[in-house]
Amino acid sequence: MKIELICTGSELLTGTINTNAGFIGSKLYNIGHELYFVTDVSDKKEDLKNVLSNAISRSDVIIVTGGLGPTFDDITVETVSECLKRPVYSDEKVLENIKKYFLKKGKTFPEINKKQANILKSAKILENRFGTAPGQMLNFDFKDENIKIRKTLFLLPGPPREMISIFNENVEPFLKSYSIGIKKSVSINVFGVAESEVEELIRPVIEAARFGYNDTVKFGILANDSVIKVKFSVSGQDEIFVDETINKLKLGFTNILKDNIFGFGDDTLASVVGKLLIGRKKTISLAESCTGGKISSTITDIADSSLYLKNSIVVYSNESKIKLLGVKESSINSFGAVSKQTAKEMVESILKLSSTDYALSVTGIAGPGGATRDKPVGLVYIGFADKKKTEVFRFLFSGVREQIRNCAVNASLDLIRRRLM
Amino acid sequence: MKIELICTGSELLTGTINTNAGFIGSKLYNIGHELYFVTDVSDKKEDLKNVLSNAISRSDVIIVTGGLGPTFDDITVETVSECLKRPVYSDEKVLENIKKYFLKKGKTFPEINKKQANILKSAKILENRFGTAPGQMLNFDFKDENIKIRKTLFLLPGPPREMISIFNENVEPFLKSYSIGIKKSVSINVFGVAESEVEELIRPVIEAARFGYNDTVKFGILANDSVIKVKFSVSGQDEIFVDETINKLKLGFTNILKDNIFGFGDDTLASVVGKLLIGRKKTISLAESCTGGKISSTITDIADSSLYLKNSIVVYSNESKIKLLGVKESSINSFGAVSKQTAKEMVESILKLSSTDYALSVTGIAGPGGATRDKPVGLVYIGFADKKKTEVFRFLFSGVREQIRNCAVNASLDLIRRRLM
Repeated sequence: MKIELICTGSELLTGTINTNAGFIGSKLYNIGHELYFVTDVSDKKEDLKNVLSNAISRSDVIIVTGGLGPTFDDITVETVSECLKRPVYSDEKVLENIKKYFLKKGKTFPEINKKQANILKSAKILENRFGTAPGQMLNFDFKDENIKIRKTLFLLPGPPREMISIFNENVEPFLKSYSIGIKKSVSINVFGVAESEVEELIRPVIEAARFGYNDTVKFGILANDSVIKVKFSVSGQDEIFVDETINKLKLGFTNILKDNIFGFGDDTLASVVGKLLIGRKKTISLAESCTGGKISSTITDIADSSLYLKNSIVVYSNESKIKLLGVKESSINSFGAVSKQTAKEMVESILKLSSTDYALSVTGIAGPGGATRDKPVGLVYIGFADKKKTEVFRFLFSGVREQIRNCAVNASLDLIRRRLM
Repeated sequence: MKIELICTGSELLTGTINTNAGFIGSKLYNIGHELYFVTDVSDKKEDLKNVLSNAISRSDVIIVTGGLGPTFDDITVETVSECLKRPVYSDEKVLENIKKYFLKKGKTFPEINKKQANILKSAKILENRFGTAPGQMLNFDFKDENIKIRKTLFLLPGPPREMISIFNENVEPFLKSYSIGIKKSVSINVFGVAESEVEELIRPVIEAARFGYNDTVKFGILANDSVIKVKFSVSGQDEIFVDETINKLKLGFTNILKDNIFGFGDDTLASVVGKLLIGRKKTISLAESCTGGKISSTITDIADSSLYLKNSIVVYSNESKIKLLGVKESSINSFGAVSKQTAKEMVESILKLSSTDYALSVTGIAGPGGATRDKPVGLVYIGFADKKKTEVFRFLFSGVREQIRNCAVNASLDLIRRRLM
């Protein structure tokens, strides 16, 4: 089953990141379907028509997001109508609901929103819990050399919250019911080994799989700020066979990558660290310099992080390192703010100050400025302490400011994870 | 000139966000060109061929990213070769450079990387400063009903750093030289007014422009965590006319949106706050609760932020509010940790503790848990203080945890901006 996604909206072509494509791609992958194409196209009718025609001819399921709003540049319904030669009618019930929506918000109904009740003939109306434009699902026949092929089109609103809710309630169950055979996917999340090294390490397992199971196994490796995801999927007709293969591969990868594996699927370093701290009923505090609060921010992205993160002090100047954390002025003068000694004093001080079980400190040069002859951009010291012991590790990250900061955040979280294992 | 982008790589279809498309879309927009289509496609030859053929028939310039690596699923060069019936040769100089690249890193040259020296006949080789795969630029003729049309194809590597460097050095200058007529783009960045309100407010200016200058003016509005971008572009043959129209529109929008405009183009709230603080030689400190370090992290994303951010304390527990900031236990007991009083004590304490010119505090309920009958998820108090005065503002943000945190970060930065103006 070939599925493709069309995302409409001029903003997607002028720099706005398409997060809808990420959501849908990841969803399909996890239910064993494959997304074949994603096309971003503006709200020009001629261009959308071109993209729709290509999609209709090459794919079985076409998902379109965006262009269901009330303004003149919302042209999805009328363009589909022209493309498929399928008439549109104004649905009374939908119109009623839209009017109610405005009434509930204490606003008068703008005439312009009438347009959102325009429905393709025979389309199923998909309720929108978070906005005025309903989704639509249309089955239609496509003629390819006189053979009729049944195809399905989904129209979804562009705002992520509305799209996600309609996708989860309608598109996902539909696609799940259409799974031909069985396909299961796994993502193994790794930290502490370079991407090229991971590739080399796991090659024997992949080669064996390719030889053993032919084309039913697929692999991919993704790397982002030193976090590596080894993804694979197994498909077949027999669930027992699929599960066996999955387990064999998982075991193969685990034997090789060992404790560098920090989780599976959607697990992040921050979520894993959170689970470990909650499980062990331990608390942590942070003293951040070059990461400027990003470790703390990443940890507190997770709900319930208040159970284990007590506090974090961002000391972004020598003065505040001395004043707030009691780092010795002489240490900064002799060794520098970016040094093993400063990281050590920072972490020991924050541990004491916060009375937590663990503490972590980071000091480094994120760049672009700040490098000296001995201390290049990317040099980062990370300290970790509990009541018995303090350790400091030296890292040299590469890339621009953002990458160096992100790698320092990830290395810090990974260090906490390893010390908790 | 129709430009389109093809991004290859299975990861783009399984959940990885396509940041290359964002970069290229934004770049083209800013130099007055328009991106017509973005297609994400996996590394299956048949699918890439389909996408390439569509692109070649409908666009004048086709930019392809990814698939230039050494492994078996890097198929861009061979697929283009088949599509355009253009032979490929192994370039000796390129091969030499690749070998040198490995030598410099102290690694032996892997035979598999030989493939990266494969160049399309007559293509211009575009040097890659950050990796082994060079980019390629190919001019070719496309026959449309017996009329030959000159088209241009760029092949760029997928890793952002490599792609960006080759894009900036080669693709951008090429496109700049091809600008037909003049097109200038402006983005007006707004905070403090709701998206729907902005739309209503600026409609008269837009209507006047549509009536006055026909189709040469284009508008769009983007909203993200309460930050709104009003984008418009003006095109024409006469630079004086274009500039005049731009200025007229800018003035029109400025008269309406006034000090809600915080910047233009790539300006962010954090960069604007940074410039204001540097310009006034002032320093700031932060006390964060529900934002968990994200304000600090956003401020320190900017290079040179150490000139104005002295420190930030993340107090993620009542205990740390009391211990590190001296918030009165009685205040927390009587008013709650999320209250005007707590925000006030937090900001006054951090100002004193840090001896900065300004200080800001945030306390709120990011959710999903933590709400009480009187205090819903999304309730946030932001305090601002200088040596003379303390103010506390109450906000009620909507959305999920991530949105509430981001809106609180943006509202905090905007508050600092307004107090500095």
